[in-house]
Amino acid sequence: MKALIAGGAGFLGSHLTDKLLAAGNSVIVYDNLSSGSKGRICHNLKNPLFKFVQGDLLNFEDTAKAVRGCDMVFHMASNPDISRGITETDLDLRLGVLTLYNILESMRLADVGRIFFPSGSGVYGDVGLTSTDERFGPLLPVSLYGASKLACEALISAFCHMFDIQAWIGRLANIVGARQTHGVVLDFLKKLKRNASELKILGDGTQSKSYVHATDCVDAIMLIVNRSVGRVNTFNIAGPDCLDVTSIAKIVTGVMGLDNVRVRYSGGDRGWKGDVPRVRMDTSKIVTLGWKCSMTSSEAVERAARELLRELESL
Amino acid sequence: MKALIAGGAGFLGSHLTDKLLAAGNSVIVYDNLSSGSKGRICHNLKNPLFKFVQGDLLNFEDTAKAVRGCDMVFHMASNPDISRGITETDLDLRLGVLTLYNILESMRLADVGRIFFPSGSGVYGDVGLTSTDERFGPLLPVSLYGASKLACEALISAFCHMFDIQAWIGRLANIVGARQTHGVVLDFLKKLKRNASELKILGDGTQSKSYVHATDCVDAIMLIVNRSVGRVNTFNIAGPDCLDVTSIAKIVTGVMGLDNVRVRYSGGDRGWKGDVPRVRMDTSKIVTLGWKCSMTSSEAVERAARELLRELESL
Repeated sequence: MKALIAGGAGFLGSHLTDKLLAAGNSVIVYDNLSSGSKGRICHNLKNPLFKFVQGDLLNFEDTAKAVRGCDMVFHMASNPDISRGITETDLDLRLGVLTLYNILESMRLADVGRIFFPSGSGVYGDVGLTSTDERFGPLLPVSLYGASKLACEALISAFCHMFDIQAWIGRLANIVGARQTHGVVLDFLKKLKRNASELKILGDGTQSKSYVHATDCVDAIMLIVNRSVGRVNTFNIAGPDCLDVTSIAKIVTGVMGLDNVRVRYSGGDRGWKGDVPRVRMDTSKIVTLGWKCSMTSSEAVERAARELLRELESL
Repeated sequence: MKALIAGGAGFLGSHLTDKLLAAGNSVIVYDNLSSGSKGRICHNLKNPLFKFVQGDLLNFEDTAKAVRGCDMVFHMASNPDISRGITETDLDLRLGVLTLYNILESMRLADVGRIFFPSGSGVYGDVGLTSTDERFGPLLPVSLYGASKLACEALISAFCHMFDIQAWIGRLANIVGARQTHGVVLDFLKKLKRNASELKILGDGTQSKSYVHATDCVDAIMLIVNRSVGRVNTFNIAGPDCLDVTSIAKIVTGVMGLDNVRVRYSGGDRGWKGDVPRVRMDTSKIVTLGWKCSMTSSEAVERAARELLRELESL
């Protein structure tokens, strides 16, 4: 197929680009390079199946032009920094909902019938240790990022039902791996590169979530796209277990070969306002479809830490 | 309290304005008069508790100015014509989500801590005869109107959790009554005024929903605002029964005193793409709070038909 990957020069988008090219698909990466970078896709530039178009999803004309003639769109562009929503309250609305609207409207006008959208656990809000499956309600997001994801899901559902579009929605756990620009693993690595004797952890360290490596995540995405045939196909994408932040700190210090790091906690039960300290997603639906996460959360975090450390050291 | 009613010159907004003024509140109606009209509020112009400000919710500066100093905002502005979303796909996004964002951001900046938002049964999508309570999931709206309502609920939830705002959300059934500009009752009245011998009904006439008179609806709104104390308080607002479209046609012809109207059906199971033919909302939550709808759906439709006929005849 001919796939358009919006945000394909970003973290997860670039992994998906590699995956789709490896499977013999034609890929157009459409990215404004605001948080994406050419470094993540330059290894594909000589591939005849690959094309890069620099463009902004908030520009409707450019987006419509890029969408035309494609078989499927993967909307991987997003605000990469969830906590920024505290001060810039329109960020997730603009980069999430308005960019998605431009894509959906472009698809409608050009008769492009398939879209994948990466939603997130944020749609479930803060429900403690409740394990949420895809039918869970009520959905009360506690961050503007989570709200934007739910708003996008709603918009996708309406376009699918009104204009015969088919959609796959992955509600993602925390994704880690090479090429990340944000997130707890990279944050710890950077802090410890600056000061190897001390690590300050946001919250009390007991926040616990599922961590999935980007390579597992793109496998899961391709599985649901290839194997589910409904009009709107929504799947939780999470690993089999969870990991707390203090354990992540231990893995990262271990990968860096550091001893005697003094760990301090900022306190409180969460990293920032809008963070959800404990996330438990029920993965029965995707497991039934045949998915098996190849790594535990610890393994995913450890591999990501090694990859990101290598990247930091090559800068 | 000092209430700002955005869209207060519209159908439901103007009924709410009357209700709040009658209860001794100070009311500012903020309306761009695009579908609202001064005719609906002119009877309040001499009331010292009432003020009208003409302004557009898409203008952030004007909105922020209007919100400042209020105790509570009622966001009653909306796209009044659901079916227009088929051709103008950005209408509900702009008039729903973007106007709401401007209000919420204005509230955040001005420390205004209370909002009421009229959502709708459209958030539940097309689930047939399933009776949906407020915890129902998954939420898969089938119209851009429904998607906009769900997106707004998501945005409200995030603002409430991040910025200590308190919200009341009413998921409304079909509201009918004087001052309506759209909807099946007015549509039938207008058609029969033009041609009293024939009535064309969209769909097959078996579409059935709950109809609530605007006066009952504003009672329900005030009840949930006054009696529920959560951070985000979501309530279905619907009557005790449902009514099909063919029955509405009979009521309207009866009110008009017409005999021998030939009824024709456009066919298909729904009025337009995005319409939900059968809606059943579970009202246990609001009933438990003490609400009792004063009219059945038939009574609400009959009273609305009489009121709207009087309005049409006075034009």
